[in-house]
Amino acid sequence: MPHRLRKYLPILDWGRSYSRATLSNDLIAAVIVTIMLIPQSLAYALLAGLPPETGLYASIVPIMLYAVFGTSRALAVGPVAVVSLMTAAALGTVADQGTMGYAVAALTLAFLSGAILLAMGVFKLGFLANFLSHPVIAGFITASGVIIAASQIKHILGISASGDNLIEVLHSIATHLGDTNWITMVIGVSATAFLFWVRKGLKPLLKSKGFSAGAADVATKAGPVAAVILTTGAVWLFGLADHGVRIVGAVPQSLPPLTLPDFSLDLMGALLLPAILISVIGFVESISVAQTLAAKRRQRIDPDQELIGLGTANLGAAFTGGFPVTGGFSRSVVNFDAGAETPAAGAFTALGLAIAALALTPLVFFLPQATLAATIIVAVLTLVDFSILKKAWVYSKADFAAVLATMLITLGEGVELGVTCGVVLSIFLHLYKTTKPHIAEVGLVPGTEHFRNINRHKVTTDPALLTLRIDESLYFANARFLEDYIYDRLAGDAAIRNVVLMCSAVNEIDFSALESLEAINARLADMGIRLHLSEVKGPVMDRLQKQHFIADLTGQDFLSQHAAFCALTKSAA
Amino acid sequence: MPHRLRKYLPILDWGRSYSRATLSNDLIAAVIVTIMLIPQSLAYALLAGLPPETGLYASIVPIMLYAVFGTSRALAVGPVAVVSLMTAAALGTVADQGTMGYAVAALTLAFLSGAILLAMGVFKLGFLANFLSHPVIAGFITASGVIIAASQIKHILGISASGDNLIEVLHSIATHLGDTNWITMVIGVSATAFLFWVRKGLKPLLKSKGFSAGAADVATKAGPVAAVILTTGAVWLFGLADHGVRIVGAVPQSLPPLTLPDFSLDLMGALLLPAILISVIGFVESISVAQTLAAKRRQRIDPDQELIGLGTANLGAAFTGGFPVTGGFSRSVVNFDAGAETPAAGAFTALGLAIAALALTPLVFFLPQATLAATIIVAVLTLVDFSILKKAWVYSKADFAAVLATMLITLGEGVELGVTCGVVLSIFLHLYKTTKPHIAEVGLVPGTEHFRNINRHKVTTDPALLTLRIDESLYFANARFLEDYIYDRLAGDAAIRNVVLMCSAVNEIDFSALESLEAINARLADMGIRLHLSEVKGPVMDRLQKQHFIADLTGQDFLSQHAAFCALTKSAA
Repeated sequence: MPHRLRKYLPILDWGRSYSRATLSNDLIAAVIVTIMLIPQSLAYALLAGLPPETGLYASIVPIMLYAVFGTSRALAVGPVAVVSLMTAAALGTVADQGTMGYAVAALTLAFLSGAILLAMGVFKLGFLANFLSHPVIAGFITASGVIIAASQIKHILGISASGDNLIEVLHSIATHLGDTNWITMVIGVSATAFLFWVRKGLKPLLKSKGFSAGAADVATKAGPVAAVILTTGAVWLFGLADHGVRIVGAVPQSLPPLTLPDFSLDLMGALLLPAILISVIGFVESISVAQTLAAKRRQRIDPDQELIGLGTANLGAAFTGGFPVTGGFSRSVVNFDAGAETPAAGAFTALGLAIAALALTPLVFFLPQATLAATIIVAVLTLVDFSILKKAWVYSKADFAAVLATMLITLGEGVELGVTCGVVLSIFLHLYKTTKPHIAEVGLVPGTEHFRNINRHKVTTDPALLTLRIDESLYFANARFLEDYIYDRLAGDAAIRNVVLMCSAVNEIDFSALESLEAINARLADMGIRLHLSEVKGPVMDRLQKQHFIADLTGQDFLSQHAAFCALTKSAA
Repeated sequence: MPHRLRKYLPILDWGRSYSRATLSNDLIAAVIVTIMLIPQSLAYALLAGLPPETGLYASIVPIMLYAVFGTSRALAVGPVAVVSLMTAAALGTVADQGTMGYAVAALTLAFLSGAILLAMGVFKLGFLANFLSHPVIAGFITASGVIIAASQIKHILGISASGDNLIEVLHSIATHLGDTNWITMVIGVSATAFLFWVRKGLKPLLKSKGFSAGAADVATKAGPVAAVILTTGAVWLFGLADHGVRIVGAVPQSLPPLTLPDFSLDLMGALLLPAILISVIGFVESISVAQTLAAKRRQRIDPDQELIGLGTANLGAAFTGGFPVTGGFSRSVVNFDAGAETPAAGAFTALGLAIAALALTPLVFFLPQATLAATIIVAVLTLVDFSILKKAWVYSKADFAAVLATMLITLGEGVELGVTCGVVLSIFLHLYKTTKPHIAEVGLVPGTEHFRNINRHKVTTDPALLTLRIDESLYFANARFLEDYIYDRLAGDAAIRNVVLMCSAVNEIDFSALESLEAINARLADMGIRLHLSEVKGPVMDRLQKQHFIADLTGQDFLSQHAAFCALTKSAA
């Protein structure tokens, strides 16, 4: 019982060995992450179309709940770019930005997402996320990054624009281009340029000036905070808000409020599909980060427990004024690099953000939205990586097709359709490949007991014996293909007296394929040819033996292909 | 060019060697099939909810077109039970039975179905039909047979009833039971009993009386015609139509009329999904029959050309007053048994039916609908075979689940949803099985070069060497599973220095799986363990070599597992 409890409450595991040294490491990491998260949380709330404070709220209770239920020791949970974009796309279909209904729908979406993740965790359905292939995720994230960056251009220019996909966004920007506020643009472009420079140029510069790598690193991380302070100061000093520069404005000074999602069936029905997609995408993003970081310290991640951790975090967001959250890549890496050793670092971060929400929000009154947009643009462009297209093209045309379709549909039609089409297409292409399996005619490699493709190796064969190695599991989608292949092969060759199906690569024979094998056996018998099997795997043979097939087989079932070859060439001689 | 022409016009192939003996065989078969088809065509038109003559029309031009374009020498094309039921279900959603719109929609459905089949043939998409697994088809046909039989009870009782699934049909019958026409019921029940007896009892009886098997066979085939003659005569003699017995009534004396389907986009949109299902189900039914019969005479069927043959047959039905058709099981078997040698037999059958449509329709004026219903019931009950449930249960629970779901949903919700759910479920179950592949730890079978599962065989192993045989292709859905499996296995075993992945059953490694392998390679390197591959198949290795992976591998790539074992145990020693 205590062991089971520890499985479901990982905090019991690391909590009992918590030391003063760990505490100090966790505290340092928490301070660094808190400083980084304040502007980021505000920015992602903006991206999701929600009031800025919801970004802070979404980072406080969810982080604490994840600290209790999650298994990753470095994962930092909160609003992330792609999920915020998906949130905006989903909420845009049920309410208008800026309305009360929109904010309440965000709570419902977080609630649904949490419930789905929790259910997946409890019923051990984490494997479902595997149907999102790496190429589909890579294509989706890149395309989302492009859409997010494009959607922020309006804040940089100080204009109004909207849209769920790249074409809509760019078109909307183009039509409002005349409204550009030049002061906003100067702030936005300088902030973007500054942040790019901090990311690319500052660290080498500091190092060349003799600063230590660690100090250079901290300076780089503090870049967004510096941009926030500089531009907020400029707006305040020169009264730029009166010249049309949009600012964050009054943010309530409060701990996260207790909130209740709207449980109406209509709303939940409308948000169900988006919630499923957000849950799965969020889970995949989170688990990849968690596993990457855990591997570096030889720790293990339990995917089903992760689902429970993320599920409770989202439920927490739903009841404390937030919106859907997940484990973020950049914040987790910062947390890890800063030395966080246990989820307590997350709890301390939550504490820091709670203090910020309670005491520091007046400081961001004059913060220009253009600065937040600059933070988002610089952050998401690191997600954009078109090289996946080239890599996939070189490796496999099917993977390439899946990436390309996911990217194009996400860019052209929006995130939900993009990721759905990517998944469906990659499943279809996988199935399609198995419908026409590779079948190799094999012969004996002289001097060994190995059998290899006669077209690739110099091998010994016997004209009266045809040995086919089937390089695929046999199931309904390819059962008829095998039949056709064998009949076609035999049609032109009267010398053959024995056919051996070498099943070393046949991992399953389903009921449809069994019926095909029975048909092949009967038809070869009519032609005076015996059918044999070799190297059938244990689990496959167990199942075949439940049926008549093995008893009805005109030939034998050989443990090894070598035994089959010896027996059948001897008998033919 | 002549060769290609012969591929697309199989008639050029068998036409040039047509002899007098073939002619005589084909003519005899045509006479027998024509006699059998007259009541059957009327009955299936009734089942589809259409006027009786459309059944004859649907058998004339389609048969002729199939004779030109089809590859099977014995297949008899026309209305069949399951497709007629699906037609009624599809048309019921767009028009009311008995209206002009209903008959025109039937033409549109035949047109769409023909166009889909033709397109599948031209683009070589016949393999798509393979996604209908044997268990799903068996479950679907059995459930359809039950629904069809139930739907005919109303004609036996002389009442009105309707419904697309078993529950609706039975409920509707129950509520109208009070309207039963007793004379109709006597005719219907006697006809049904008579036809059952003809099918089961007549042949043994005649044989015991000294008749030859052939003569007994012909008498059995003539059963439905005898029932038609006897009951028509009784209705006419005793004026039973005036006592509420529903009769076929006036059927126009005419060759098939030229008709035009309704090409409105609304109607075509509404009928598209049913048309796809009808096409695929019809194709699967037809090709199974054609291949079974072709195999008996060592002939070959070209599935893509079959699609073209069935496609033109349906287009023919659309323009000559018919409804969707396909190759029927019972009529094809009769045709084959009667000695049909070429598709010309079909053309002669069409001629016979044309004469019937032109001259004999007045003879069926007094034919009671109850007799046609009896013909249908007796015919479809041969389709009903619940033993597939037991067979599938014994062999595989996944196949069983697919059959059961298809049956229950078809019976409870109707044919379209039933077959769709069956296909989706069997694809999902297949994918599910591959997400958690069988991975066997293997060792050397002493005295051989073979490696087998350590849990099933007495084998030699080395504590510093872990050899895993992966019994599945590696792709996105199971890539993470392999990672988890390896890390878990290594977690408890500090002695291991080398890991060999034996890939004899790995038929594909997709881009996602490649990334997992790279991750495994890197992580094992961190742990001081080398990763090796053995028995990688040619096509898989070709692809791997396009990437860094093989170059980055910490270990080697061995042609055979035996070579890997020798090299790695020697180096460890």
